[in-house]
Amino acid sequence: MPREITDTTVGVVGGGQLCRMLGEAAAPLGIELLFLDPTPRAPAHPVAVEQFTAPFDDREALEELAERSDVLTYEIELADPDVLRAVREATGTPVHPHPETLRITKDKLREKRFLREHGLPVPDFRSVDSADDLDECFDALGSPAMLKLRRGGYDGRGNVPVDSPEEARRALDELPGDVLMEEMIDFDRELSAIGVQGPDKRDTFPVTETLHEEEILRCTVTPARTSQQIRARARSVALSVLEALGGRGVFGIEMFERDGEVLVNEIAPRPHNSGHWTIEGTHNSQFQQHLRAVAGQPPGSTALRNPAVTVNILGDRDRGPGGLTNTRSVMDHPKTHLHWYGKREVRRLRKMGHVTCVGHDVEELKRTTESVVDSLGFES
Amino acid sequence: MPREITDTTVGVVGGGQLCRMLGEAAAPLGIELLFLDPTPRAPAHPVAVEQFTAPFDDREALEELAERSDVLTYEIELADPDVLRAVREATGTPVHPHPETLRITKDKLREKRFLREHGLPVPDFRSVDSADDLDECFDALGSPAMLKLRRGGYDGRGNVPVDSPEEARRALDELPGDVLMEEMIDFDRELSAIGVQGPDKRDTFPVTETLHEEEILRCTVTPARTSQQIRARARSVALSVLEALGGRGVFGIEMFERDGEVLVNEIAPRPHNSGHWTIEGTHNSQFQQHLRAVAGQPPGSTALRNPAVTVNILGDRDRGPGGLTNTRSVMDHPKTHLHWYGKREVRRLRKMGHVTCVGHDVEELKRTTESVVDSLGFES
Repeated sequence: MPREITDTTVGVVGGGQLCRMLGEAAAPLGIELLFLDPTPRAPAHPVAVEQFTAPFDDREALEELAERSDVLTYEIELADPDVLRAVREATGTPVHPHPETLRITKDKLREKRFLREHGLPVPDFRSVDSADDLDECFDALGSPAMLKLRRGGYDGRGNVPVDSPEEARRALDELPGDVLMEEMIDFDRELSAIGVQGPDKRDTFPVTETLHEEEILRCTVTPARTSQQIRARARSVALSVLEALGGRGVFGIEMFERDGEVLVNEIAPRPHNSGHWTIEGTHNSQFQQHLRAVAGQPPGSTALRNPAVTVNILGDRDRGPGGLTNTRSVMDHPKTHLHWYGKREVRRLRKMGHVTCVGHDVEELKRTTESVVDSLGFES
Repeated sequence: MPREITDTTVGVVGGGQLCRMLGEAAAPLGIELLFLDPTPRAPAHPVAVEQFTAPFDDREALEELAERSDVLTYEIELADPDVLRAVREATGTPVHPHPETLRITKDKLREKRFLREHGLPVPDFRSVDSADDLDECFDALGSPAMLKLRRGGYDGRGNVPVDSPEEARRALDELPGDVLMEEMIDFDRELSAIGVQGPDKRDTFPVTETLHEEEILRCTVTPARTSQQIRARARSVALSVLEALGGRGVFGIEMFERDGEVLVNEIAPRPHNSGHWTIEGTHNSQFQQHLRAVAGQPPGSTALRNPAVTVNILGDRDRGPGGLTNTRSVMDHPKTHLHWYGKREVRRLRKMGHVTCVGHDVEELKRTTESVVDSLGFES
């Protein structure tokens, strides 16, 4: 390392849609992709050289993956930082981003403390070790506030808004793990910056606006519809996050914009849903950038090729076959790109695919993309 | 057929770089790709669900491939039209483009006769059944003329310019098969139109200029640097070729421009090297268009997204390991895209990969792309 990109094998822990899109980006570069996932024929299966079917923390399987790879990376927070560190020590295969970064970002309390220690702006928060802490938390953070599971929450699962210590006590009983409390942010909008960190250089893609419903990302708009100052501030904060974390790869850095300020909400040490637009919206997608960064190369250009809007295709029922209907609505549109993840089963609000539309006017792009995604359905 | 694109399995005869790029295009659409190729771990291997390792005319293996696929297609002229027709009859799986099209285009004499019968402009030609025909051929076609192998020649192999019947007689003795003679075309430039034919609609991508050296394609420039009239004429001729051939898929239609006229040189019933620029230069690459067409959908938009220049990366030695060096020269350029085919061995003038650069000014794009490709090397 670094060797030629065309002669590199990357091992990925996790074989979901992020790994699938890593595989799509790997082939033109000549990178061979291996991955480990417990689900047979996981979404990445068609675009990888080989799947290792094993649990995410199966040390023996991970060591075999590492022995076959020039570098290991992960696309899922379920990867185990301690096992990854042990595998790195045992095999000598580097792991990027650092396992320590995964340890930090897997735990929201640890993540917020890390960011605050590095002087980065975050919503105010308190650790909640027992129900006895709740009065003091409300005194400090105001009401309403947000209770958040420290570990294992994603796509908004594990976040509970609470109005009073009594309500918080009840929520505490129901949440399946340690929690923290955070001030409720009345944000003007939510932003995301996809950061790219190579061995000796860091950069970000243009700042994206993220639109959530029921705490699930529905739509991204790039460039974000906010002021140049805020976009510059978000980029600067994201670069500081990368510097604080070190390591190589792509990082999704989600932020709140409030009253002309930017606060870091969450960090994903991997390609992120808010960066899918980069496949068509730039010349080097977040997936390509992640591969080149973990392979030891500096970031490529992150410049905007065209404004882009991405809308997620989410499952619309509790359980059923994964087949899509009316795909012609997407295929017939001249500037609209379908990305299907090949999941065999639909579940409510499960991310099944996405559609990106590129052009010039983001309002028009948003209308078009939402309209074609609305016209899609699932087979009954 | 037609079913939803996201629920389609396409079987491909041939697993070279064209199949590899079909696989890269298939994954975002949710299409599963299977292919058959006699070389284990062929270039398409990393991006396909499964390789069938068997000769191109292995009927049993082809029938198994057909049984597992919704439609069969081919990416190599070595596929056998009679076997494909038999497999289609035995399994009921459609084959696109038609096996008959492959039978026509595999034989340059048959192809030229077909085109002439359909009123399409071709260089003047004569069949050469024996050396006794040569004097008459020269009388009809002038001198110099071109002797061409009817079958099995590609990338200029099998084409011999000849000045006299004596020279032609010697060439005839050395050429390993049936030949035809063609008038020598003193062309102004060479053009290519990638045609797309769906079940009830046909279209072409913008016309491309192709630059050959030693009869190997080196560089494509899109849009072609010629008059609007010639581009329109080339498109119109290409649409007539599609209409004459019928069937579904993408067709590479190579042409000569001479004195304000357009003559058809060769037809490839598959994605073509002169269409690789469409991956970045349009919203629906030739590979995506081929998949959707063979799957029974009408063509998507073929509009230009940006002018594009593609330069091939060709092998520079007789035999050696396939590793590329100095890839950073490509990766560091902001609008330049590397496509590496993953071939394990380099051979002289073998197509090992390509680089596409998109932007605005084709002259500048050509300089940039040629310069980055020149800076690449092969490991020694």
